[in-house]
Amino acid sequence: MRLITIALGALLLPVAAAHAQATSPPPAVVPANVQGVLERLRARALASNNAYEIVESLTTEVGPRLAGSPGEARARDWAVAMLRAQGFENVRVETFDIPYWRATRQTAEITAPAPQPLAIAALGGSASTPAGGTEAEVIRFASVSELEAAPAASIAGRIVFVDERMTATADGAGYGAAVRKRGACPRVARERRAAACLIRSVGTDSHRFPHQGASGAIAQGAGVPAAALSNPDADQLARLLSRGRVRLRLQIETETQNRVQSGNVIGEIRGRDRPDEIVLLGAHLDSWDAGTGAIDDGAGVAIVAAAARLIRDLPRRPRRTIRLVLFGAEETGVFGGADYARRHANELPKHVVASESDFGAGRIWRYRTRFGAGDEGYAARFFAALAPLEVFVTDAQPASGGADIGAMREAGVPVFDLTQNGLDYFDYHHTADDTLDKIDPAALRQNVAAWATIAYLAAETDWNLRSAEAR
Amino acid sequence: MRLITIALGALLLPVAAAHAQATSPPPAVVPANVQGVLERLRARALASNNAYEIVESLTTEVGPRLAGSPGEARARDWAVAMLRAQGFENVRVETFDIPYWRATRQTAEITAPAPQPLAIAALGGSASTPAGGTEAEVIRFASVSELEAAPAASIAGRIVFVDERMTATADGAGYGAAVRKRGACPRVARERRAAACLIRSVGTDSHRFPHQGASGAIAQGAGVPAAALSNPDADQLARLLSRGRVRLRLQIETETQNRVQSGNVIGEIRGRDRPDEIVLLGAHLDSWDAGTGAIDDGAGVAIVAAAARLIRDLPRRPRRTIRLVLFGAEETGVFGGADYARRHANELPKHVVASESDFGAGRIWRYRTRFGAGDEGYAARFFAALAPLEVFVTDAQPASGGADIGAMREAGVPVFDLTQNGLDYFDYHHTADDTLDKIDPAALRQNVAAWATIAYLAAETDWNLRSAEAR
Repeated sequence: MRLITIALGALLLPVAAAHAQATSPPPAVVPANVQGVLERLRARALASNNAYEIVESLTTEVGPRLAGSPGEARARDWAVAMLRAQGFENVRVETFDIPYWRATRQTAEITAPAPQPLAIAALGGSASTPAGGTEAEVIRFASVSELEAAPAASIAGRIVFVDERMTATADGAGYGAAVRKRGACPRVARERRAAACLIRSVGTDSHRFPHQGASGAIAQGAGVPAAALSNPDADQLARLLSRGRVRLRLQIETETQNRVQSGNVIGEIRGRDRPDEIVLLGAHLDSWDAGTGAIDDGAGVAIVAAAARLIRDLPRRPRRTIRLVLFGAEETGVFGGADYARRHANELPKHVVASESDFGAGRIWRYRTRFGAGDEGYAARFFAALAPLEVFVTDAQPASGGADIGAMREAGVPVFDLTQNGLDYFDYHHTADDTLDKIDPAALRQNVAAWATIAYLAAETDWNLRSAEAR
Repeated sequence: MRLITIALGALLLPVAAAHAQATSPPPAVVPANVQGVLERLRARALASNNAYEIVESLTTEVGPRLAGSPGEARARDWAVAMLRAQGFENVRVETFDIPYWRATRQTAEITAPAPQPLAIAALGGSASTPAGGTEAEVIRFASVSELEAAPAASIAGRIVFVDERMTATADGAGYGAAVRKRGACPRVARERRAAACLIRSVGTDSHRFPHQGASGAIAQGAGVPAAALSNPDADQLARLLSRGRVRLRLQIETETQNRVQSGNVIGEIRGRDRPDEIVLLGAHLDSWDAGTGAIDDGAGVAIVAAAARLIRDLPRRPRRTIRLVLFGAEETGVFGGADYARRHANELPKHVVASESDFGAGRIWRYRTRFGAGDEGYAARFFAALAPLEVFVTDAQPASGGADIGAMREAGVPVFDLTQNGLDYFDYHHTADDTLDKIDPAALRQNVAAWATIAYLAAETDWNLRSAEAR
């Protein structure tokens, strides 16, 4: 998962204000036969290991799949084979070019007063250090604000260390605040001529796994080596700094290319009478390269593929088309989502609804939508259909749809969120420890059932989820 | 902690049989004033952060301290300063020579069919691989017995992988079975001309931390590269092998020296009227080098030092001497314990009792002794004194005393065990994740209280814990 901030007011509230008086849509009644199908889908989802087998296959047979790497190319081949084996139609790859960055060395050690190695991960886009590394005194800031307020003279030539902690929450709300330092630290370090930037990992665990992640600030202007320390290593550095001066040597070596290939892999269940209307289910194929991308986002790939597969296995395909999009290069810049929205711009008005599963493999506990004004009746119908799965929470906050859905959402495509329990998501997110054993097969089955429910309802009804004006 | 197997029958039972009719010792009554001191010691232990501050200082200011390394030398300097600062007498270092081994590189990657790195740790004493590494096909064995039964032809030239799992238990009972593979795998690999040996880590976690550890088999005859995979990596390799052939490249580079210096650090509270009678409290200073040795064995160092410090702070010192011994080079061969027993051989008959704290920092739940025949009354008194600390379990199994106490025990020194809750000990043991944050300060305080209780009782009474014959 990558963070995309939504300006709430700009998205939903003005629309609601302008169209509060618009014609209401027809009542959203779920026909009895559709109800029956939903029950069967749910029962089958909760009894099937298909999703677990898919994520096991991806994480085992492909493993790490950094955007633009040979691993990501193998993941596309895997995805094409998997989608075909699961019986989808129109399976294809849409390629695009992206910049490439990979760390080939990332080590740090305290050189004085107590020589010892520290566990770090270079931030995506980090500059390399000079040969032999950069050694300098460390200066600690308890928060990004404290760093931003620091005079340049106190920073120049030193290694800046932003020691802000992240809070674990069920909906990942702590991520937004915590991830700020990933951009701010390299930016301020560069502006004020620091030797390098270190951050306490954007992560909620206490294991010696540093958390990888992109830094937009680095991508925009390079020049500064930047890395994340694991939480125990950040604790250790802070303790040493509380005792006096600390010198640290950082060695980061990177490999970069201006243009390499990435791509989205697409498969469909063509609709039986409105095939041009599309219900889009997404997830992303790429991962950071320390782990095998099980919770981020092998689980998402498995959930949406297994959900669609259940619908494909029904005696009668739904009226609208269900399109699976397995996005490439999400982690390093949401390139797949942007390419899809650009390439399919003409088709977007026919996208009924879209969402991406990209917050791990925990049980879904909340449903949100961003439909058009006046479409609360539809939202309520979808929500009610999730109750047997113990999805009991919804609210008026608009859904984001997921990072790769952002460009579509901005182009007016209605979106929803099936929010997973992410209390432990940021324990593993972007670490070497993001591996298959972190996935609970029972929770994964509940996810598949929820996605199948929403996808089938959206594809089988003629509900138009846009605001009346946009219809 | 290192494993030392005790031959139960050889140690205790024949003694008991031979002396069942011997004169009973005088009744073990704890005088009222001693009871009062025990209560004060307990209350102070449970209110003090001294032990936590000691282990924080050691793990932060020294960090990793592999036997024979500069880190271990710094730990001795640290220990001398700490013991003096805590007010102990006769603080001194007893040095001895040990062989030195350190891995400077330890990497593995699957080369086919799904290229990906695996997290490994070279086993102590492992041979280096040839330049560029060793690449070969992997052959998996579900157990040591399966490996031992395999024909040489199936193994020669391959990388042997022993995939036996370890069980978590409160008293570490799973370690004995699991650690067998650390010796057997390299031995069989060498005998049957395998290219290398890989084992599933001796550890109970599911994080990507391989567990370090010595292999006696390697030390005895070198020649085979050997390493442990983290549990998730062992899972991954097993899954790939279930799909077909797997090739793996192993790169291990090591640094060895025949003789480097290690040493034990000793401090005392001299007894007020039987100073030549010694109550020995031990722990070991060295650690494996991936982590900072917090639970193994910084916690032990802190527990015994803080317990003795509480006794030193009493208005009147106890009758017998309390001697702290912080052993060197335990992990790589129990060199410190052997050196102590040899150097102090003449003094051992005056050692009243001895024990080492070396099973982490969990709450103590069990007390065991190996005293002389007929000394059950003393054992019961010690045990009763622990009840306020919720140490409710004891049994007739003889105590081991700890690895460094082994040579003393064999020379007839009575020993006891204060068994900690080790359910999660082997999650962190010998990994990079053995860091300060894994220690619960409240559990540490309970440990200090228990050690202070036993140490004070042993030092203030005139109880003779040897069998009547040996008195």
